[in-house]
Amino acid sequence: MKIENIDLSAYPNSEKIYVPGKIHPEIRVAMRKINLYPTVKIEEGKRVEYPNDPVVVYDTSGPYTDPEYKIDLQKGLPRLRRKWVLERGDTEELSDLSSEYGRKRRDNKTLDAIRFPNKVRPHVAKKGKHVTQMAYARQGIITPEMEYAAIRENMNNQELGIDSYITPEFVRDEVASGRAVIAANINHPEAEPMVIGEKFAVKLNTNIGNSALSSGIEEEVAKAVWSCYWGGDTLMDLSTGENIHETREWIIRNCPVPVGTVPIYQALEKVNGNVELLTWEIYRDTLIEQCEQGVDYFTIHAGVLKAHAPLISKRLTGCVSRGGSIMSEWTIIHNQESFLYTHFDEICEILNKYDVAISLGDGMRPGSIHDANDEAQFLELDVLGELTQKAWSHDVQVLIEGPGHVPMNKIDENISRQREKCHGAPFYTLGPLTTDIAPAYDHITSAIGAARIAWLGTAMICYVTPKEHLSLPTLEDVREGVIAYKIAAHAADLAKGLPGADVRDNALSKARFDFRWKDQFNLSLDPEKAKRFYVESRQGAGNSDDKFCTMCGPNFCAMRISQNINNKCMKND
Amino acid sequence: MKIENIDLSAYPNSEKIYVPGKIHPEIRVAMRKINLYPTVKIEEGKRVEYPNDPVVVYDTSGPYTDPEYKIDLQKGLPRLRRKWVLERGDTEELSDLSSEYGRKRRDNKTLDAIRFPNKVRPHVAKKGKHVTQMAYARQGIITPEMEYAAIRENMNNQELGIDSYITPEFVRDEVASGRAVIAANINHPEAEPMVIGEKFAVKLNTNIGNSALSSGIEEEVAKAVWSCYWGGDTLMDLSTGENIHETREWIIRNCPVPVGTVPIYQALEKVNGNVELLTWEIYRDTLIEQCEQGVDYFTIHAGVLKAHAPLISKRLTGCVSRGGSIMSEWTIIHNQESFLYTHFDEICEILNKYDVAISLGDGMRPGSIHDANDEAQFLELDVLGELTQKAWSHDVQVLIEGPGHVPMNKIDENISRQREKCHGAPFYTLGPLTTDIAPAYDHITSAIGAARIAWLGTAMICYVTPKEHLSLPTLEDVREGVIAYKIAAHAADLAKGLPGADVRDNALSKARFDFRWKDQFNLSLDPEKAKRFYVESRQGAGNSDDKFCTMCGPNFCAMRISQNINNKCMKND
Repeated sequence: MKIENIDLSAYPNSEKIYVPGKIHPEIRVAMRKINLYPTVKIEEGKRVEYPNDPVVVYDTSGPYTDPEYKIDLQKGLPRLRRKWVLERGDTEELSDLSSEYGRKRRDNKTLDAIRFPNKVRPHVAKKGKHVTQMAYARQGIITPEMEYAAIRENMNNQELGIDSYITPEFVRDEVASGRAVIAANINHPEAEPMVIGEKFAVKLNTNIGNSALSSGIEEEVAKAVWSCYWGGDTLMDLSTGENIHETREWIIRNCPVPVGTVPIYQALEKVNGNVELLTWEIYRDTLIEQCEQGVDYFTIHAGVLKAHAPLISKRLTGCVSRGGSIMSEWTIIHNQESFLYTHFDEICEILNKYDVAISLGDGMRPGSIHDANDEAQFLELDVLGELTQKAWSHDVQVLIEGPGHVPMNKIDENISRQREKCHGAPFYTLGPLTTDIAPAYDHITSAIGAARIAWLGTAMICYVTPKEHLSLPTLEDVREGVIAYKIAAHAADLAKGLPGADVRDNALSKARFDFRWKDQFNLSLDPEKAKRFYVESRQGAGNSDDKFCTMCGPNFCAMRISQNINNKCMKND
Repeated sequence: MKIENIDLSAYPNSEKIYVPGKIHPEIRVAMRKINLYPTVKIEEGKRVEYPNDPVVVYDTSGPYTDPEYKIDLQKGLPRLRRKWVLERGDTEELSDLSSEYGRKRRDNKTLDAIRFPNKVRPHVAKKGKHVTQMAYARQGIITPEMEYAAIRENMNNQELGIDSYITPEFVRDEVASGRAVIAANINHPEAEPMVIGEKFAVKLNTNIGNSALSSGIEEEVAKAVWSCYWGGDTLMDLSTGENIHETREWIIRNCPVPVGTVPIYQALEKVNGNVELLTWEIYRDTLIEQCEQGVDYFTIHAGVLKAHAPLISKRLTGCVSRGGSIMSEWTIIHNQESFLYTHFDEICEILNKYDVAISLGDGMRPGSIHDANDEAQFLELDVLGELTQKAWSHDVQVLIEGPGHVPMNKIDENISRQREKCHGAPFYTLGPLTTDIAPAYDHITSAIGAARIAWLGTAMICYVTPKEHLSLPTLEDVREGVIAYKIAAHAADLAKGLPGADVRDNALSKARFDFRWKDQFNLSLDPEKAKRFYVESRQGAGNSDDKFCTMCGPNFCAMRISQNINNKCMKND
């Protein structure tokens, strides 16, 4: 197996750096340093060079961009956090898988060809121990995960003298209160710790996964790496087709960011898509199976209650959440309350043994502008608030999922209600899409809504690719979706006034004004595409030292004229 | 000459319709009607069809999408408004061009090969007459242009019984007060009238034009038609290369939407790019030349004053407006106030003879997040407010141009100040871009800002293509830019609660829920791309009658499950 069609060399003049911890000197926080060319001026007939400070950027790409690291998907990534977990002394290695289904898949010889080869034994909390970051935070412990996450949030700040409130202790306090989440399953030690919360840089999640109609394991692993490479902070594997178990293993072992899933999808596959046959027992075994594989957070649609089902028929587009619609149908068929709701305490008891966070799914999220902010949506939100406190009582970390399709004027109410009902748990929204009329461009319809809701305090935004509503994304779609959401997240960071957020903007703009074309490309979110657009237009003429661009040509370059004006004004001084 | 590489058949199941006027029964307002398939249900074992109302959408494509119309670029578009202008009896045909440069170009035999062949004589106001829409509006006259524009704003409303405030009289009142602009040069009778103002649907402008480095006449005309085809409401020809005069003639004669220019560009070409040699006389002749060609609005950077130049050096990215930087440099070289400012009354006297609107350029717009809302920007805005009242005293219509690069948290101040200082004149902004770090994706960084500022009241947003900052847009870039801005404009219309704005959203969402795939494509902003994305993923399997899509596959389709739930809930009722 190899990473197909992926070029991991799109960041020229970038250097992988590692910043050590202070509380935990053994941790090495990965970042990307972009080195810049000097500004060149002609002063009194002489060429003078003024150096430009390098810019350090948040790096989600993991070891894949470390030239010292030899990529080997068969082996999986280094187990960065294994030592930290072991040193806490509150977990133990399992002698066998706890999930019946997991054992069945393991023992199925016909799967040998597609199985991830480098198996390790999962860990679990020792009896009576809560091994979640929230449990530690509440005890006042600053874990290596917390310090790692804190250092990541302050890339250029220390060197540039920018005051920042984001200390390891601050991270601990945010996690303790539930206002922030560090999704870090003890069985996914490959992932680099990161923090999701309103006070931190806005994060973005990407979705990948095959459906019955498409996509194999290799393609999904490639998409996972690709998504991290371009800037995805977390990754959800939403596979619903064949070999979900094996696909997930490959992804987790090779994924440097937290991985989420929606366990009900796999549970439904186990009963061949027949909702009626779903049971708590099947779901429970699926949770354990995935906890031991290393999934970092589960989307659980436990807020979709039996009483909500009739509200669906009042809508223009019904229930557009797969998990929500499955559970809603189940409550009707069985005329019983959802087992996700009735067994919620048991779910939390399982999750706190592995430190899997719950992402409370919004099964009733609106699927159209028409259905935004309706009764079904907000009734479910009330339930999510109730479940948040229940999960916290088990030291389980919680995210709250949000919509969906919402016109701009109704976005504010979504986050203010979420804040009111969900006790400060981080909000994690899908877009929202601000209009329904642009399939094939929904990365844009939704980036508009995502930027707005993130500015208002949403901690993580779930990307939407151009293929949303139409088909599964290709590698190119993943890239487009990630960049659109990096833009939305960063625009929100700027608007929130996050310390140091504008360092990269200012460096790029200065490069632009200086005609340092290469720096302009290298500082951008997608250096490869920016350079390609520039080079194509030149058709061999000119080069990237030109003091103008194709847009205006040499006579009309406002930046060049500005430099003349500056020179003249300075002479007049 | 032909329209190259352009496929004007991307709107299946659409019909060109013409709605007659009531005050002016002779006017026929062009719209596009999208016909829909019925919703099919199986009821008691029988197939029952429920028809779906067609959706009428705003149509900027002009005669190009009328199957009755034979495209002939050599001849130009029909002169729709010629009769209306003549019937007012306040203009006269000129026996010769008034511009010296215009006559010189006409008499230059070497230009015959590239000259637009079907010449007509320009018109001008009779002595003492103000022939602007504002002048008529102030006299209480509802012109055919006003009624045309009003009818366009109410596409589905009458038939669907949606209350709308947008009557011809309302348009007249808005134009009279200066709160709205109908840019309609008497010498561009080919353009279909439209209104720009806060109370109406948000409009979008596209920029095309060659620079010294690229692009010929054919390509620019193709881009103009293409931009209208996808939804551009107005078009600016920003050419700065050779043969500007002839290129513009081709564009105007074939353009069904108002055309704007920045006359200082051509004036500078006339002095070979040497700012020092620019004079009021050369600029004046350029204005007249373009007035008689039919340009509908001029960007004039009359607010860039001599006193502002030193502020440029305080900025990270100086002055990024081409016109602004030219005028600023001119004031320094000559140590004189800008001739655009000192001759502003004379400019207005010229413009009111042809009804050319002024778009007061923001020469000091910020070119980076760092420079947003600074002193240079806001001092200029004060001057624009002063010039607005001066132009209005000449019955000349005014737009106010706005930024640029602005982080989201600083957008609100831009429009609230514009409102305060510019007496309600429509705001017309370029984006704004909400971060600097994404060259190659600035259609997205700016659509985020454009949607926000348009929601807050900006009347027209100027598109940005993916090539912004890098090179001139290709046809494909024009399409991407237009669609991104159609999205921003429409998202703002929804958020503003514009009557009937959600009709298309609701129809598309209903089609989505019904699995009427073809209707979903046909109702979208880009049916060709939406369908292509869908079809590619199917690889020959399935067809557009399928009750699921590739994203989730048949077992996981939330919409299908929702329909089951609805059926079950209804049975239980």
